[in-house]
Amino acid sequence: MDVFKRDLTIAWGDCDDAGIVFYPNFFYWFDTTYHLYLRSLGLDMRDIKARFRAVTPLVDVHAKFRSPITYGDDVQIEAKVGEWASRRFRLDYVVKCGDRLVATGYEERAWAQFDDEGRLCGVPIPAEFKALFA
Amino acid sequence: MDVFKRDLTIAWGDCDDAGIVFYPNFFYWFDTTYHLYLRSLGLDMRDIKARFRAVTPLVDVHAKFRSPITYGDDVQIEAKVGEWASRRFRLDYVVKCGDRLVATGYEERAWAQFDDEGRLCGVPIPAEFKALFA
Amino acid sequence: MDVFKRDLTIAWGDCDDAGIVFYPNFFYWFDTTYHLYLRSLGLDMRDIKARFRAVTPLVDVHAKFRSPITYGDDVQIEAKVGEWASRRFRLDYVVKCGDRLVATGYEERAWAQFDDEGRLCGVPIPAEFKALFA
Amino acid sequence: MDVFKRDLTIAWGDCDDAGIVFYPNFFYWFDTTYHLYLRSLGLDMRDIKARFRAVTPLVDVHAKFRSPITYGDDVQIEAKVGEWASRRFRLDYVVKCGDRLVATGYEERAWAQFDDEGRLCGVPIPAEFKALFA
Repeated sequence: MDVFKRDLTIAWGDCDDAGIVFYPNFFYWFDTTYHLYLRSLGLDMRDIKARFRAVTPLVDVHAKFRSPITYGDDVQIEAKVGEWASRRFRLDYVVKCGDRLVATGYEERAWAQFDDEGRLCGVPIPAEFKALFA
Repeated sequence: MDVFKRDLTIAWGDCDDAGIVFYPNFFYWFDTTYHLYLRSLGLDMRDIKARFRAVTPLVDVHAKFRSPITYGDDVQIEAKVGEWASRRFRLDYVVKCGDRLVATGYEERAWAQFDDEGRLCGVPIPAEFKALFA
Repeated sequence: MDVFKRDLTIAWGDCDDAGIVFYPNFFYWFDTTYHLYLRSLGLDMRDIKARFRAVTPLVDVHAKFRSPITYGDDVQIEAKVGEWASRRFRLDYVVKCGDRLVATGYEERAWAQFDDEGRLCGVPIPAEFKALFA
Repeated sequence: MDVFKRDLTIAWGDCDDAGIVFYPNFFYWFDTTYHLYLRSLGLDMRDIKARFRAVTPLVDVHAKFRSPITYGDDVQIEAKVGEWASRRFRLDYVVKCGDRLVATGYEERAWAQFDDEGRLCGVPIPAEFKALFA
């Protein structure tokens, strides 16, 4: 799978006093979309921990807001891996409302493994993990 | 329609340090389910405001937690109107994970209409609104 | 200490499309106030876990909304233990904006201890914990 | 005033299953800090709307996470205007836990004014607004 897509209806509580989405919610949706993407590939954070002894902490995140969305809007979020670095990877997100572009953004995540003492440190991403997204 | 149902997958960000859902999220889901219920009946908060010059503010809310849910769980939320009083109505919610009961709760909402000066005051719920839920 | 008090300024993102606080936030504040209360007594959830091998999961929660609050309002939240049962205790909350009553509510929490196999079960609240609130 | 600072204690509900802050909360804190900054200058979003007929919607946001924070940590957030463009301005944020750098980030905001038909459009930021931050 190349691009993962999910649909979402904007809730009353997602909007602020100006009647548009309160922007931190976009990052909640990015993160949630990442987890749903993993799930669609047959794994989740617990599997990543159990199988790889790893976690994928955030390093750098960004969003650009193009047009507002509001209560009741039906939006679609697309996610794909935009880049594989040795110890990091970047998820790219696009949010659309019908044909209208709403927002773009990314999450750069590290690959961090627990050593035998339980300490976390960044290590190269295993080929097995990358292969899942191919 | 009698009972409205929706499905939900518990997100990473919905859980707390103990690995279970941080409980205020249940109320976010109750509120969101109310709005989706309205929508399934062909109206939403904006319609209520436009058609009835009314809003439905919260008066009293409650939840009882029976068993924990966690990241990745697929739950179902059921909503129905449990009681119609003259100027208030109560939404009853049941959250299940498969057959397991997770939580129950309610939202008591007032019916408040704007008068000609724009002031809000509680008035009897119109039969037209009640009929939608029949 | 008898009653714990904290001050809070209502944030932009706490309000919804109607310009008033989105109600699940009250429960976030109740929970946060409980933790700040514990901290004022010299312990927190980690200490409870380390010292008592216990956690205090939510059983039952409630709130009654008396008057609305909005962006920029300075409110005060009061918390006190309203009841000690054998295996449960109830925190009572009052939210005020100046002299105006905004909301009341409670959290009923269980006292649950880990046994030697790591399973959680409800047990009587230790006198040492109760004594902290005296 | 040059740099605005505020203190914050990380709440239980701010953390996720991994025991560290769920990252969208950083943006909630950035936004909230912006509003508290405005307030320290004697105005808020309602004043901006009333006095300037303007709002300051988000265009672009970013955060870089340097070290994790968790439940109970006392952090300090610093905010300053990092750049004034003609129709936009950028708020820069630094989050610290004691001397340790936790995160940096920015919010780029537009200056958008309502015209006589109530439509919003980007216009140059008035000198009077800029002067407040000097």
